[in-house]
Amino acid sequence: MMKLNNHIKKGLIISRYYSTNTSINNNNPFKNTYKTSLFAPNHVDQAETNETIKSQILLEKEGYIRKLASGIYITLPLGLKVIDSITRIIDQEMEQINGQKITMPKMLPAELWMKTGRWESSGKDLIKFVDRKGVDFCLSPTHEEVVTNLVANESISSKQLSLRLYQIGEKYRDELRPRFGLLRGREFIMKDMYSFDKTIEDASVTYYQVKQAYHNIFDRLKLNYACVEADSGNIGGNMSHEFQVLTNSGEDTLIYCDHCHYHSNIEKAVGGNTCTTKESDVNNLKKQFLHISTDVDGKTHNTIGTIVTNSNDTPNLYSIKSHFKNIISIQEIGVNQMEKLKKETDASELSYGLFIDSSVNDSLHQNIKSHLSESHSISQIQSIHVNNYREAKLGDLCIQSNCNGSSHLKTRKGIEVGHIFYLGTKYSSKLGAFYNSESGRQFLEMGCFGIGVSRLLATLVESNMDEYGIKLPYNVSPFKLSLIPKYKASDDKNLKEAEEISMLLQKEIPQLYNQILISDDHKNSIGKRISAAQSIGFPYLMIIPDQKSDDSPRFEIIRRDDQSKFYLHKHELVDFFKNNK
Amino acid sequence: MMKLNNHIKKGLIISRYYSTNTSINNNNPFKNTYKTSLFAPNHVDQAETNETIKSQILLEKEGYIRKLASGIYITLPLGLKVIDSITRIIDQEMEQINGQKITMPKMLPAELWMKTGRWESSGKDLIKFVDRKGVDFCLSPTHEEVVTNLVANESISSKQLSLRLYQIGEKYRDELRPRFGLLRGREFIMKDMYSFDKTIEDASVTYYQVKQAYHNIFDRLKLNYACVEADSGNIGGNMSHEFQVLTNSGEDTLIYCDHCHYHSNIEKAVGGNTCTTKESDVNNLKKQFLHISTDVDGKTHNTIGTIVTNSNDTPNLYSIKSHFKNIISIQEIGVNQMEKLKKETDASELSYGLFIDSSVNDSLHQNIKSHLSESHSISQIQSIHVNNYREAKLGDLCIQSNCNGSSHLKTRKGIEVGHIFYLGTKYSSKLGAFYNSESGRQFLEMGCFGIGVSRLLATLVESNMDEYGIKLPYNVSPFKLSLIPKYKASDDKNLKEAEEISMLLQKEIPQLYNQILISDDHKNSIGKRISAAQSIGFPYLMIIPDQKSDDSPRFEIIRRDDQSKFYLHKHELVDFFKNNK
Repeated sequence: MMKLNNHIKKGLIISRYYSTNTSINNNNPFKNTYKTSLFAPNHVDQAETNETIKSQILLEKEGYIRKLASGIYITLPLGLKVIDSITRIIDQEMEQINGQKITMPKMLPAELWMKTGRWESSGKDLIKFVDRKGVDFCLSPTHEEVVTNLVANESISSKQLSLRLYQIGEKYRDELRPRFGLLRGREFIMKDMYSFDKTIEDASVTYYQVKQAYHNIFDRLKLNYACVEADSGNIGGNMSHEFQVLTNSGEDTLIYCDHCHYHSNIEKAVGGNTCTTKESDVNNLKKQFLHISTDVDGKTHNTIGTIVTNSNDTPNLYSIKSHFKNIISIQEIGVNQMEKLKKETDASELSYGLFIDSSVNDSLHQNIKSHLSESHSISQIQSIHVNNYREAKLGDLCIQSNCNGSSHLKTRKGIEVGHIFYLGTKYSSKLGAFYNSESGRQFLEMGCFGIGVSRLLATLVESNMDEYGIKLPYNVSPFKLSLIPKYKASDDKNLKEAEEISMLLQKEIPQLYNQILISDDHKNSIGKRISAAQSIGFPYLMIIPDQKSDDSPRFEIIRRDDQSKFYLHKHELVDFFKNNK
Repeated sequence: MMKLNNHIKKGLIISRYYSTNTSINNNNPFKNTYKTSLFAPNHVDQAETNETIKSQILLEKEGYIRKLASGIYITLPLGLKVIDSITRIIDQEMEQINGQKITMPKMLPAELWMKTGRWESSGKDLIKFVDRKGVDFCLSPTHEEVVTNLVANESISSKQLSLRLYQIGEKYRDELRPRFGLLRGREFIMKDMYSFDKTIEDASVTYYQVKQAYHNIFDRLKLNYACVEADSGNIGGNMSHEFQVLTNSGEDTLIYCDHCHYHSNIEKAVGGNTCTTKESDVNNLKKQFLHISTDVDGKTHNTIGTIVTNSNDTPNLYSIKSHFKNIISIQEIGVNQMEKLKKETDASELSYGLFIDSSVNDSLHQNIKSHLSESHSISQIQSIHVNNYREAKLGDLCIQSNCNGSSHLKTRKGIEVGHIFYLGTKYSSKLGAFYNSESGRQFLEMGCFGIGVSRLLATLVESNMDEYGIKLPYNVSPFKLSLIPKYKASDDKNLKEAEEISMLLQKEIPQLYNQILISDDHKNSIGKRISAAQSIGFPYLMIIPDQKSDDSPRFEIIRRDDQSKFYLHKHELVDFFKNNK
């Protein structure tokens, strides 16, 4: 955690900014307290953070956030204003699709998690503790159990469906290695929605309505992102999409095509092999054995799978998922583990599956089967599938139907900011959530839909920053305009002029109310003050010129987005800011 | 925790309410989804809750909240809308006094708590756990340590002061017996502000500005409350006020005077003894021995105190606090414990103090001293104080200077909704938070200021409810108007009329946007539907009359607050709701 009392090492621009408030109402007995010195302490020394990601360094440097402990952050006024703007956009879009906002606790009883089996399966990421009476609890990483139990406890009629409940609040994940600042923290803010529908068809309408709402949200945040098919992981279900913001950093790797704009998560990506020399000998092929556990009517059934690809390809575990129902786990195994499994499992409870990648020479298919039979005594293979079972890779041909077929796939980094899942009845059946239909009780068809809210703060900085520092879209910027007095004179005339202009603009332009900051730093040069204002990232900065009684000086305005400059007379300012957003 | 799958026992009014939304914009491809069935499940069976407090039963019955586990609640849409309205009022009043909003983590490293000594002293109410690496953490019951450390890590100049940081978020306290629903939970929402000032004088300006802001907040919530002097408890410091909402229930006992409106917390209350017969024999007096530990330059000093009152009075431990600096603890002790303390403590490290209540006969003072000396060998008493050292009680005379002197004090119940403290340098000195003054480093003078936000939801219900059910002030009510179609005809003409009126009112009156609900319950009688609408607590309900082509029927409006009724023509509705709030 942060070292205590180490302020000696810190630099800062003293009281860099303050805001003036035009709205002190008549009931307020403290009329003279209308200046607020913004608490956005500036850390000049970047070396103090151990972060490797640029956005995180900037967020700490400019006083948007502070680290309290590994993966745990304090959100300062600037950071919170961005989070609040993101929240407002999410709330508006959720309301459009009839999302109803609730709040679920962060301290969750273990009992529910045991019912779904996730108390054990969640591993060490789940923070567990006991209360003073010895009852087990965990800190919420997600709320499927709680929300499903909530609905299960009410008598739901078909008139109440589709039911869409969501919340925005803290989530907890005890990461082994918290890193990239807000991108992978241990306490973070998520928006999570859970939907309940009568039928699979209704659930898919919900799924696509939420998907569209997510497009609206990320569009309004002006992010360059891709919506890609994704694996549904531990959450369950069999349909899932990720929203990946395309950046130069980020933890996820995406495959994409420049020509048709195809984007995919690496697990789901499909590409055409460009290798012209295919293996002609079965011994040169790559064979990966898998142990697949599935749930069949409450009992675990085992399958030994074999994926066969050309030697220069990587078998894709996720690609065989569609062949199985109710998968519990898929694991890569070696020959010894396979032999052990065959010995220990009753023959009637063991199946065999062979998955041959379509790039493997057709003529070898029979050889592969004989080879398996001879080398590993796997003769009773029930099913042989030929399809795309290899991972797509850099340089593969794009085989999307709307592509010209000659483009090559590329890879890039992405930051996952949204993830949506169709869950089916996985949770509703375990926790007894149903509705009363004409033909009796029906388990509810569920979906769950997440957005990383605090992660979006870092992502917005990461994807917009430039050589000047932080840059944020107008609609989420914590302030819209900073005023910098030129301070040529030694008196405060310049500063007073800035205050008057701040008052005027706030009065005339409602969207600027409480959105203007004034720099009262007169220690540093005008150049340094402009750099500081650029780095903190508000959309406009304006330099208040030296006032002499007989001239009509120009006000220099710099638009942060494109560094364009405007030189205006005082009487033109209101119109300018009315028309520029 | 709540039993799972017990929905069979539940009754509910199916899909009681839905809201219509006039604002579906043109970009929304799902125009037909404009009806939302409100998720406010109705529990008819009150016996299902184990709560004894009426507001809690009503909040669960009407679907504002649901219990997840003992002292842990889910906030449903109705409850969250009230919380959001309370939050908005708090944010506005905090902004008026330059409060800057931040968010501090809930998962707090033990390290800071050890520095202030509260890791040990907080007892079992503090929820502790270890992360996967074995590092100690706790769940935030309060944030003095975190915020003081935050400020200590920055270089603070006098220009940045007064600094006032606040947040609204979850707090945790592992109550031995969680009870009264939201009033004493284990996870709850607090607003907490922490202030940092240069001097005691500045800190007291802050203190009184926040106090005034709290008055504004509770006034706007239309609560009947008293601001009373209070003991500062474990938080530290030596000035404190509580805001107590005056109700018929609640955990706290208040002393008050009908005549001059004096109100006080029982510990701080002062009353005049009405007992005319005072004890004339020293043996009949009540003597309470105390062990007082104080911190003197980092070392613990012990004092044996003796409070002497008349036999029918209760000695007040808190009343002697002002005689000591840096109190660590005050404990009642018996004669044996006192003797043991005397034996085990070096004479130079032990003091004696005698506190005689002013109602004790003056003539007995010398006898008391002799008696102590003889019975308990306490001859070296350094200080004798005569003052009010008894607890005030029902029937005492009010001795406030602005009272007539003949009024008798009464007692009543209160719910503490706000508590403010002047902290001094207790935390800033331990965690090294100072500012750079001209004469060097000065520890910051702190204050802390709390409001129980989720508790206010319950308190608002508790103090406004009547025989019809929940009643809420207009400005925090989750909806403003519910429409009830009369349904005399078997078709849905009546319901369509309600939808049209809802659209009209939302269009014409901005404050009603998204604030109208329509009941689509046509199973129950009109009487039952009116009862249901009254009980859920919105300020207005309107019955949509049966429409015939040739008449101009009246709309019956019931104002929830005073049950007054209005009968209006359709063309009068917009004006009515424009003028009534």
